[in-house]
Amino acid sequence: MDVKAAVAFEAGKPLTIETVHLEGPKTGEVLVEIKATGVCHTDAYTLSGKDPEGLFPAILGHEGAGIVVEVGKGVTSLKPGDHVIPLYIPECRQCEYCLSLKTNLCQAVRATQGRGVMPDGTSRFSLDGQTLYHYMGTSTFANYTILPEISLAKIREDAPFDKVCYIGCGVTTGIGAVINTAKVEPGAKVVVFGLGGIGLNVIQGAKLVGADMIVGVDINPKKRALAEKFGMTHFVNPQEVDGDLVPYLVDLTKGGADYSFECIGNVKLMRQALECCHKGWGVSTIIGVAGAGEEISTRPFQLVTGRVWKGTAFGGARGRTDVPKIVDWYMDGKINIDDLITHVMPLEKINDAFDLMHHGDSIRSVITF
Amino acid sequence: MDVKAAVAFEAGKPLTIETVHLEGPKTGEVLVEIKATGVCHTDAYTLSGKDPEGLFPAILGHEGAGIVVEVGKGVTSLKPGDHVIPLYIPECRQCEYCLSLKTNLCQAVRATQGRGVMPDGTSRFSLDGQTLYHYMGTSTFANYTILPEISLAKIREDAPFDKVCYIGCGVTTGIGAVINTAKVEPGAKVVVFGLGGIGLNVIQGAKLVGADMIVGVDINPKKRALAEKFGMTHFVNPQEVDGDLVPYLVDLTKGGADYSFECIGNVKLMRQALECCHKGWGVSTIIGVAGAGEEISTRPFQLVTGRVWKGTAFGGARGRTDVPKIVDWYMDGKINIDDLITHVMPLEKINDAFDLMHHGDSIRSVITF
Repeated sequence: MDVKAAVAFEAGKPLTIETVHLEGPKTGEVLVEIKATGVCHTDAYTLSGKDPEGLFPAILGHEGAGIVVEVGKGVTSLKPGDHVIPLYIPECRQCEYCLSLKTNLCQAVRATQGRGVMPDGTSRFSLDGQTLYHYMGTSTFANYTILPEISLAKIREDAPFDKVCYIGCGVTTGIGAVINTAKVEPGAKVVVFGLGGIGLNVIQGAKLVGADMIVGVDINPKKRALAEKFGMTHFVNPQEVDGDLVPYLVDLTKGGADYSFECIGNVKLMRQALECCHKGWGVSTIIGVAGAGEEISTRPFQLVTGRVWKGTAFGGARGRTDVPKIVDWYMDGKINIDDLITHVMPLEKINDAFDLMHHGDSIRSVITF
Repeated sequence: MDVKAAVAFEAGKPLTIETVHLEGPKTGEVLVEIKATGVCHTDAYTLSGKDPEGLFPAILGHEGAGIVVEVGKGVTSLKPGDHVIPLYIPECRQCEYCLSLKTNLCQAVRATQGRGVMPDGTSRFSLDGQTLYHYMGTSTFANYTILPEISLAKIREDAPFDKVCYIGCGVTTGIGAVINTAKVEPGAKVVVFGLGGIGLNVIQGAKLVGADMIVGVDINPKKRALAEKFGMTHFVNPQEVDGDLVPYLVDLTKGGADYSFECIGNVKLMRQALECCHKGWGVSTIIGVAGAGEEISTRPFQLVTGRVWKGTAFGGARGRTDVPKIVDWYMDGKINIDDLITHVMPLEKINDAFDLMHHGDSIRSVITF
C-alpha cells in the first residue's frame, strides 16, 4: 500500500515527505494506522548523525498512537479496530528478560530492531524499490506502519491519540523512572536535573507518589512556572548558586536527596546528581542519554557510603502491561499531559517540530495525521 | 589503669608495645577487656600513612572481642561479664540514619570517632601525659579499651574470642555485603573479585544464601583451593584469559553476573565488576577501599541498560542487631571462620601479623591477650 511518511534520507538533513510503499503484515506482525506521534529528542539525536547505531534512509518516530488495521498470521492479542501505542521496547512475556521480573528490557526482537528491520530480517518500507529502514521498531513518522504484535500496547478507545501518543515515550520514561526504577516513596526528597519533557514527567511522577520536596534544577528560569504547576516545590538555577551546586543541594534537602534524576544526558550532571544524594541511602537514576563514548565518574567512597547509581530505559515500564495503566491515569486526571504538548502540526510541518525543539521553544510537538 | 597496648607513634613505622594509661569509663561508656583481635588491611592502610584521616600517635585495631569489665553512668544494655564485639560503626537506634531502616551508617558518634576521641571530645588513652588517639572508636590493639555503649554488640558467652573477633570486621563485611547490601537470592550467579579474607567471606555468604554459580577472580592461583572449600564453583585467573576479562566473565556466566563484588580496592576492577554484570538487572557492590582521590568510571549506558552500582561498609550490618546473629551462625556451623584464621600470636608479635599480611602469607592473623 501507499503510505505518507517523513523520510530521513541522510544524517543532518531535514526530513522529506514522501509517498512510500508499505508491505502488509507478515506472521506475528500488525498493520497500524498512526493517528498521532510525538517528536522526541531521540529522533533528533539519530537524525543528527551522532547516534552510532543510526541507519539511513529510515522512517523515524517512536512516540505514536493509532488503530490496528490488519493483523498477520498468528496474531492473537490484537484485532482490527483496537487502539494501540507502539512500543520501542517490546514485552514478549517469554524471554529470559521478561521472565526475570527484574527488568523491562525484553530482548525478543532486539537484534533485528537494532538493524532497522522486522524480526524476519526484512523491512516493510521501500521507496522506488529502495529499502527504507524501520526505526526503533516503530517508525511512527508515517500514517501507516508495521510492528510486531509484542511491540504494541492495547489501550482504551476513548483516549485521545494526540495526547496519549506521548505515553509512548516521554511520559512513561519520566513517571516510570520514579515508580518502577527508583521506587520513590511518600515523604521523599527528590532532585530533578533538567526541566524539559522528561524532567517534568519525573516531577509529576514524584508528586503522584507523594514526595514531600521536589527540587528542580535548570539553568533556564523560564522552565520554573510550568515545573511548579507539575509539582516542583523548589527551583534551583545553578548559575545563581554561589560555589558548588552539590553542597548547595545537600544543604537545601537537609542532608541530600533521597532520590535524584538526571534528565538531560550530561555526564557532569550525572555525577552531581549522584553526589547530591543522601549518604546512606540516596538513589540516583540516569535517564538522559549521554553522547557516544562519554563516561561518568565519581569516587567509590560515594557508593561505599550508601549511595546507589542506576539508570532506566522507558522508565522501567513493561509496555504492554504498564502503558495501558498510564493511559488510564491520564484519562482519570491523575497525570497531566495536555500542558506538555505545546505544539500540534501536520506531518508536512514535521521539520518545524525539530526546529522548535532545538530552540527550546517546545516541550513536546505532536504530529497529527 | 595500666594497659598493655601496641602503639602507632607515626606513619610507616612498626608498632611499639607500651604500657599506657587508660581512664575509666565516663557516662555512656564501657570498659572492655579485649581477649582477641584480628589485624586487618584497614589497620595497615592507616599505619602506612595513606589514610588521609589517620591520626598519630594512636592505638589501632578494630576487629576485637572481649568482656565488659565496668560500665559508666547511664549504661543500661550492658553489665560487667557480658561478652562483646566492638563496633566501628555503632548502632544507636535513635539517629536519622538508624531510624531510616535504609542504612547501617549510624552517625551518632561519627564526628568524634573521626577525630580519634570519645563522644565527649577527649581520649581515654595516654602515655607519659601525652594523648594517644582512639582508632575507629575501638582501639582493640590493647588488652583493655573504652567504647561507647552503642559501639558494642553483646554476644553469647560460649563463642570463642579468638574466632568471633573476626566477625567484628571481615566476616560481617563479606557475608553482610551478600545478604544486606546486594541481597543475593537462591539460584543467583555471583562473581567475586579478589579471594582474600573479604572475598572468601563473600563466597561463603553467597553459598549460604543458595547461589548457583560462584566465580572467584584472582591473579594468585594459590587462592583457589581454599576458595573452593568456601563454595567457589569456578576460578578465573585474569592472567590466563585470552583477551578482555569482561566478555570472558559474561560468557562464563551465560549473560553476566547477577551480582558481583569488588573486594580489593582497585578502581579498574570495580569497573570490570560492574561491566561483567548481566544487562537488565546485574548489581555490582564495591567493598574494597580505593586509594585516596581515585575514581571509578564507566559509560552511563551500563546503568541505563539496567546494571546497578552500589557499595557497602561493614556489609550493611547493623552491628548490635546483626553481629550476634552471625556469631550464632558460626556456633551453629553455618559459616566457617576457623579456616580463615591462619595465624594466632601474642600482642608482642603484632608486627609479624602486618608482615604476613603484606607478603600475602596469611588470610587473617589474630592477636590473643
